[in-house]
Amino acid sequence: MKWPQTVVLKEVGPRDGLQNEKTCIATEDKIAWINQLSRTGLTYIEVTSFVHPQWIPALADAEAVAKGIERVPGITYGALVPNQKGLAKALACDVDEVSIFISASETHNRKNINKSISESLPVLRDVAKEALAAGKSVRGYLSTVFGCPYEGAVSTDQVIRVAAALFDMGIGELSLGDTIGVANPAQVQRVLERILKHFPAERIALHFHDTRGMALANILVSLEQGITRFDAALGGLGGCPYAPGASGNVATDDVVHMFNGMGIHTGIDQEKLLAAARFIQSRLGRKLPSHTLCAAGEAIG
Amino acid sequence: MKWPQTVVLKEVGPRDGLQNEKTCIATEDKIAWINQLSRTGLTYIEVTSFVHPQWIPALADAEAVAKGIERVPGITYGALVPNQKGLAKALACDVDEVSIFISASETHNRKNINKSISESLPVLRDVAKEALAAGKSVRGYLSTVFGCPYEGAVSTDQVIRVAAALFDMGIGELSLGDTIGVANPAQVQRVLERILKHFPAERIALHFHDTRGMALANILVSLEQGITRFDAALGGLGGCPYAPGASGNVATDDVVHMFNGMGIHTGIDQEKLLAAARFIQSRLGRKLPSHTLCAAGEAIG
Repeated sequence: MKWPQTVVLKEVGPRDGLQNEKTCIATEDKIAWINQLSRTGLTYIEVTSFVHPQWIPALADAEAVAKGIERVPGITYGALVPNQKGLAKALACDVDEVSIFISASETHNRKNINKSISESLPVLRDVAKEALAAGKSVRGYLSTVFGCPYEGAVSTDQVIRVAAALFDMGIGELSLGDTIGVANPAQVQRVLERILKHFPAERIALHFHDTRGMALANILVSLEQGITRFDAALGGLGGCPYAPGASGNVATDDVVHMFNGMGIHTGIDQEKLLAAARFIQSRLGRKLPSHTLCAAGEAIG
Repeated sequence: MKWPQTVVLKEVGPRDGLQNEKTCIATEDKIAWINQLSRTGLTYIEVTSFVHPQWIPALADAEAVAKGIERVPGITYGALVPNQKGLAKALACDVDEVSIFISASETHNRKNINKSISESLPVLRDVAKEALAAGKSVRGYLSTVFGCPYEGAVSTDQVIRVAAALFDMGIGELSLGDTIGVANPAQVQRVLERILKHFPAERIALHFHDTRGMALANILVSLEQGITRFDAALGGLGGCPYAPGASGNVATDDVVHMFNGMGIHTGIDQEKLLAAARFIQSRLGRKLPSHTLCAAGEAIG
């Protein structure tokens, strides 16, 4: 078989998903939802972001969420931090892992973080150093790897350069983001072939948005390149507030459904996942884009 | 490159798409839409179905549509026919090709055609014989190849048996249908590996529905098996009225968008395709499931 037998999914819905929803979810509902997610078999949940509430008001309750959830042994509870101030709050909540983020394209980085890439790197370096010193693992997010909403094409040389800088800071894993959902399978194959000459597949995750419906096809091609780690958001929540035209992350339930069908082990219970998706869908009050959620609804209704 | 350089798309929206829409489209709008489709670079358009209007009221105007459209040279205009009565009407309209259909699962065939598979085959044989004698090519549709809404799993032996009977009637091409959108990439690979031991890839088309979001991934795996012919419906129209939980065909515009990005030639103009998708979307008055149509709308709006 040309596909691996086991994969690891990283649930980013409570952070990457909710940060871009118009409806704010009550803190107690977020906590209840994350507690449901903790019982699906997921081993990583990114629970919130410690960015300034001015930028992401939907996650202004980061501390209450991170402190309020049940922590199930064996699950890594992560949070996004933009700088040392955010890190201090994350550490005060004793998250297991912190995520740092930067873009591969200058314009997107500036719109997102208000700094150039070279100005951002020292900030991230300090955050990573302090987090590692505090005994936390660090995850890196690299955005706009497959295309930028402002610049268009993004150079893979640039991706490799910024990725190398992040690994040099001591990150354990790097998540390569198709922030605006433009990647196609041939491009994913081409880019990964180059990237995997520099970094081992076990330390690379892929983060696809399903804007143009290609996320599952891109995951399939990534699998064929030896990638076994994928980010996803339950129900297909989320997007990127600074990327025009971006729609949600690929839906965790769609990914799990495909892997289950293919006989690839995820350790995740699809029924519990769908129940959690229905919960957050009801709280948001809008139909989420997940295909399996929709198909399950049709079968019932 | 592990993918072919050129593929052929078969537009089934005016038939497989519209037959399952609740809103009936005015005959003049159907004709205007098909005339738009004829100018996108498509080389095959299935324009209607000559089934009894009692079963598919949305296509009761089959004759007016087939006679009313402009026939652009180089395009094959096909129509579905269930029996000799339907064939006579199709021949009277001088369609270029007729499509015959049957299911790989007994229960689905009975619900769809009200006959067993062995009762259906002689009917199709007579239709094919007469169509070929009239100088028309014949296309075969085999439904529920990857799963049946009533029986669940479908035996690939049975698929091969019915496929062989259809090729024996003189069909030029066989379209293998994932009628309820349950196929996954590993299954598609497995089933195609077996089928392609019996029939050449050039005479097999794949017909995926995107019910669970896997259609593009399934197309990718089919490409890797040497398949170059795919059915699709503009905007993701359609489904199957007798298959509970079935949603639309994979969207032609999503397929073309992916192939364009991958550098695989389709000969189809994406902008003209999107314009035609917007037209039929406005006439139906509901948001179609196509991802690229949605992404294009967001970029504009």
